[in-house]
Amino acid sequence: MPRRSSTSMKDVATLAGVSLGTVSNVVNSPDLVSPATRERVETAITKLGWVPNESARQLRAGRSRVISMVVMDIGNPFFTDVLRGAEDWVLGHGYHVQASNSASQAERESEQLRVLEQQRVGGVLWAPVSGPSERADALRRRGIPVVILDRAGIGGGYCSVSVDDVEGGRLAVDHLFRQGHTDVAVVGGPGTLHQVRDRRMGAEIARGQHGGDASLLFITTPTMESASGVAAADQIVALPDVERPTAVFAMNDLLAIGLLQGFVTHGLRVPDDVALVGYDDISFAASAAVPLSSVRQPREALGERAAELLFSEIEAADHDTPHEHQGVRFTPELVVRRSSAHERTPAGS
Amino acid sequence: MPRRSSTSMKDVATLAGVSLGTVSNVVNSPDLVSPATRERVETAITKLGWVPNESARQLRAGRSRVISMVVMDIGNPFFTDVLRGAEDWVLGHGYHVQASNSASQAERESEQLRVLEQQRVGGVLWAPVSGPSERADALRRRGIPVVILDRAGIGGGYCSVSVDDVEGGRLAVDHLFRQGHTDVAVVGGPGTLHQVRDRRMGAEIARGQHGGDASLLFITTPTMESASGVAAADQIVALPDVERPTAVFAMNDLLAIGLLQGFVTHGLRVPDDVALVGYDDISFAASAAVPLSSVRQPREALGERAAELLFSEIEAADHDTPHEHQGVRFTPELVVRRSSAHERTPAGS
Repeated sequence: MPRRSSTSMKDVATLAGVSLGTVSNVVNSPDLVSPATRERVETAITKLGWVPNESARQLRAGRSRVISMVVMDIGNPFFTDVLRGAEDWVLGHGYHVQASNSASQAERESEQLRVLEQQRVGGVLWAPVSGPSERADALRRRGIPVVILDRAGIGGGYCSVSVDDVEGGRLAVDHLFRQGHTDVAVVGGPGTLHQVRDRRMGAEIARGQHGGDASLLFITTPTMESASGVAAADQIVALPDVERPTAVFAMNDLLAIGLLQGFVTHGLRVPDDVALVGYDDISFAASAAVPLSSVRQPREALGERAAELLFSEIEAADHDTPHEHQGVRFTPELVVRRSSAHERTPAGS
Repeated sequence: MPRRSSTSMKDVATLAGVSLGTVSNVVNSPDLVSPATRERVETAITKLGWVPNESARQLRAGRSRVISMVVMDIGNPFFTDVLRGAEDWVLGHGYHVQASNSASQAERESEQLRVLEQQRVGGVLWAPVSGPSERADALRRRGIPVVILDRAGIGGGYCSVSVDDVEGGRLAVDHLFRQGHTDVAVVGGPGTLHQVRDRRMGAEIARGQHGGDASLLFITTPTMESASGVAAADQIVALPDVERPTAVFAMNDLLAIGLLQGFVTHGLRVPDDVALVGYDDISFAASAAVPLSSVRQPREALGERAAELLFSEIEAADHDTPHEHQGVRFTPELVVRRSSAHERTPAGS
């Protein structure tokens, strides 16, 4: 944990206008302190970035046996599968799982983390909307371990569990180039999501590897939901024939399913007119109107591993033993189905 | 609220071995009481079924601005759509939503409700696995309003929001009989789920209305997940030709998508060899390999209306004004797509 040794408990007490004993109570026995005073002290703690010089075990007193999971889209089967993977592990340790949906909105996410701090949950599995967050640091300072989901370490000593999104994007686009396509659209967004940036980078790497004719068209969507896929299909269909890509890499399966619906509506055949690869390999990918090629992430394993890391941190805190942060990274694989199975006849033949 | 006038605060104090003032504090200002004492008093309150003779407003002191939703399968888009419908309303009122997944297990559900009571959440939206529950009554006694989701009133003064499942089952099976099918399989389970019982009853009503040749084959599945649909397809395919139904009503879309995969694997064409109707009309139904006919429930509206009822109860409690419980029931509609669109040629022609 980061410490600013220049700040002491006395500074906190002075700023909050309370006694040293009250600050100590807020940290160790907050139930003894009135809510108003508690809030004043907590504000001072946050403002000064003070880390109590107590043991982790004491910091954890009064935490509930609830693990909270904060996800970006609870309607995306990717996250519910991760949740179910985590849940098996968590229940086996006598804890319960509760989920919050940030809906990819940073402000909503920040409020949710604040609520979790007030609830004194036992630990948090967090799929962050964007970068590091003061709110998450606050949780950690209060003795609530946080494991970062679906993202490699975002700096500052958290455990994290992720899948290599750069490699996933590379796999998908490399496959399309190998099928003979030269113009590939890459659909996803918003660009603030790290998954989007990483998968795009993977697409760029694949283009670099193929060189020559290989060209990419990036289409940024406002969300990762299927309605954005339908709209992207409209955009692609509206392009002049000569500019229209013959293959699309959609950055998740919900977008891909939306694109599929959109193409069908416009009379375009998949894969004959447009090939399509999605991402996540949710269970609906295999049973889509045209079975969908997709980059598979080990969803349950991801959730399970995240829960395992969280519990090792909780146990270390409970027993006041050291804990070393780990970043676990899984490698995705490409599952090829009908939506991208046809090889492209070279142009002019 | 039910009251047992034979039990008094004094009985609780005696059983817990504390003063009357301490019991009062546990009810009104629990932060003033040590956790150990609080637990002893709460155990006595539960044991005696005592309802404090205080106002609802006082009972609600210290509740958090969190609405909890307890669902039966967080991987089913039906529930995540209901959740998103509720969330819009809840956020507009300055509250947050957290979800728990009972996975259709009564014991897990009971534990989750107990955790919510400890967390002093502001209110609960609850899709119950089975019947009325002592745990839910306990929440209500502690001033935490509960609205029953996806089920008509289960007795004892709760608000409820539901869709008419009997009519939904009737609509689906009536449609299949009208298409010329005489042997229809009805797939769903376990039979302990009220949705399963109600949709079956609707199927029976449809058979009664068609009379004559109309016959139903009930196949009970262990879960409502797609893997159970695949297994049910195996069972149906294994039947001798003469007994094999020509149409299937699956009690949710996950089962239907599993059945579709199973039939395709066995070389059966949908709808030519077997017609298929699902339930819920989740967004994947329209983009399934064979677009799926399905009974549509107004999911977002259901969640929104449930949240509205919950807030009217919370506000009544906060302002100590009367609240009258309501049961809101929506009517489902059938959306016909390709999976059941072909009319059946009469046998022998």
